[in-house]
Amino acid sequence: MKFLGIILFLSLFSIVSADEKLNLHGLPRPLILEYPAIEVTSLDEAEVSVRCTSWRVAVEANNLNPWKTIPYECADYVKDYMMKKGYSIDLGMVYNEAREFARKVELSGDGKDVWVFDVDETLISNLPYYTAHGYGLEVFDHDEFDKWVEKGLAPVIESSLKLYQEVQGLGFKVFLLTGRKEEHRGVTVENLINAGFHKWDKLLLRSSEDHAKTATIYKSEKRSEMVNEGYRILGNSGDQWSDLLGAAVSLRSFKLPNPMYYIP
Amino acid sequence: MKFLGIILFLSLFSIVSADEKLNLHGLPRPLILEYPAIEVTSLDEAEVSVRCTSWRVAVEANNLNPWKTIPYECADYVKDYMMKKGYSIDLGMVYNEAREFARKVELSGDGKDVWVFDVDETLISNLPYYTAHGYGLEVFDHDEFDKWVEKGLAPVIESSLKLYQEVQGLGFKVFLLTGRKEEHRGVTVENLINAGFHKWDKLLLRSSEDHAKTATIYKSEKRSEMVNEGYRILGNSGDQWSDLLGAAVSLRSFKLPNPMYYIP
Repeated sequence: MKFLGIILFLSLFSIVSADEKLNLHGLPRPLILEYPAIEVTSLDEAEVSVRCTSWRVAVEANNLNPWKTIPYECADYVKDYMMKKGYSIDLGMVYNEAREFARKVELSGDGKDVWVFDVDETLISNLPYYTAHGYGLEVFDHDEFDKWVEKGLAPVIESSLKLYQEVQGLGFKVFLLTGRKEEHRGVTVENLINAGFHKWDKLLLRSSEDHAKTATIYKSEKRSEMVNEGYRILGNSGDQWSDLLGAAVSLRSFKLPNPMYYIP
Repeated sequence: MKFLGIILFLSLFSIVSADEKLNLHGLPRPLILEYPAIEVTSLDEAEVSVRCTSWRVAVEANNLNPWKTIPYECADYVKDYMMKKGYSIDLGMVYNEAREFARKVELSGDGKDVWVFDVDETLISNLPYYTAHGYGLEVFDHDEFDKWVEKGLAPVIESSLKLYQEVQGLGFKVFLLTGRKEEHRGVTVENLINAGFHKWDKLLLRSSEDHAKTATIYKSEKRSEMVNEGYRILGNSGDQWSDLLGAAVSLRSFKLPNPMYYIP
């Protein structure tokens, strides 16, 4: 029975994965869970934890296909990870590494050394939204999320604010590169300032002609423009691999943890 | 007291990190542990597990600076991970994703579609060696490791053999690209065959002029040569980020787990 449970558990990952592919670029749908009610109670808590950790490692190592929701069985695991110590410890680990790199890397001093930051789940946190929406268990709802963004209430990610201030103090130019749309510039600026980010050298939001592009393509193009303008991208912090990979990649990239959603 | 323990624990990561930098390219040294005997008994087992998981995630997400040994406090954690279920579950997760990609990606059918495989900790396992050498806790000893390699006894990684056979069946050319030196070609071929890998289209080992290069540079050069010969690298499997990043990167890369050692 336990063996059967494991098989069912693994099958679920495949079901989720196949489903994602079919609907990846589909319209936002209502917040309805889409998984068959398969009995997996034969897996004990420790087993679920090991398997959900494995899933999370695969997310962070960019091994997974595009995925649309977290595995149903990992709902409690992801909630605990986000709300207890795991997430903040991981953020601290990335912060320590990024700070050490920022202090050691050689700057030219000509004002062309850049650190790129993503915004959501990198500088500010949408955890209050995801807390009310299943920590990634619900299918993403653009309209609902937009309503949250427009409140401008996303709190600071403290370790990122520390890194932000540190790299500014070291002489980096700070460029913010976000998938948020240009229409949200006002509320984004207000939110960033309220969260403690008081100055930046560029804030790039997605214009209407960039809406159809994947984040990887859009961000690669924007980074390439920076490089063409003579900037050297030394550091890049983002919670999505689409913040970090593609063209004009940074000398070093820092992947902040995010097991709640995936942006291609 | 618990708080103090956490601080000491975090400090250790920093000490390890600073130490790595100083000795990264130093000569192999005797198998002596180099860490100060700091009392961390105030951290309970669950706390250590959370923090060592965070360290492992940072390894797999390529967030860490070059590191030379695993954190002292994570010795039991890494041993358990390798010997109990964690490692094999992670291998299975990567295998599932790679297989799914291999089946879906479009092949041209002109014999130029390639899957690149690393060898150590990707196709065959040096776990018997690391079992006898602290699972990454001991400073790497080239001479000792060479003696192990020359036995030709590294066992198969079963999930990788399955992927290997599957991609060959699908029509991929299979290129093996390893940091092992050319002098070890004979024993490597023998070891691979004994482990179940019976044919390949190229087996590239490190020649003497490539010895001083980092793995990232060496492997990027070799992949660039493949691309210049007209091959399309569609898949790449490796346990080190230096197997996967740099120039001529694969359409998709698969990072196999390895918390025991780091190759720049």
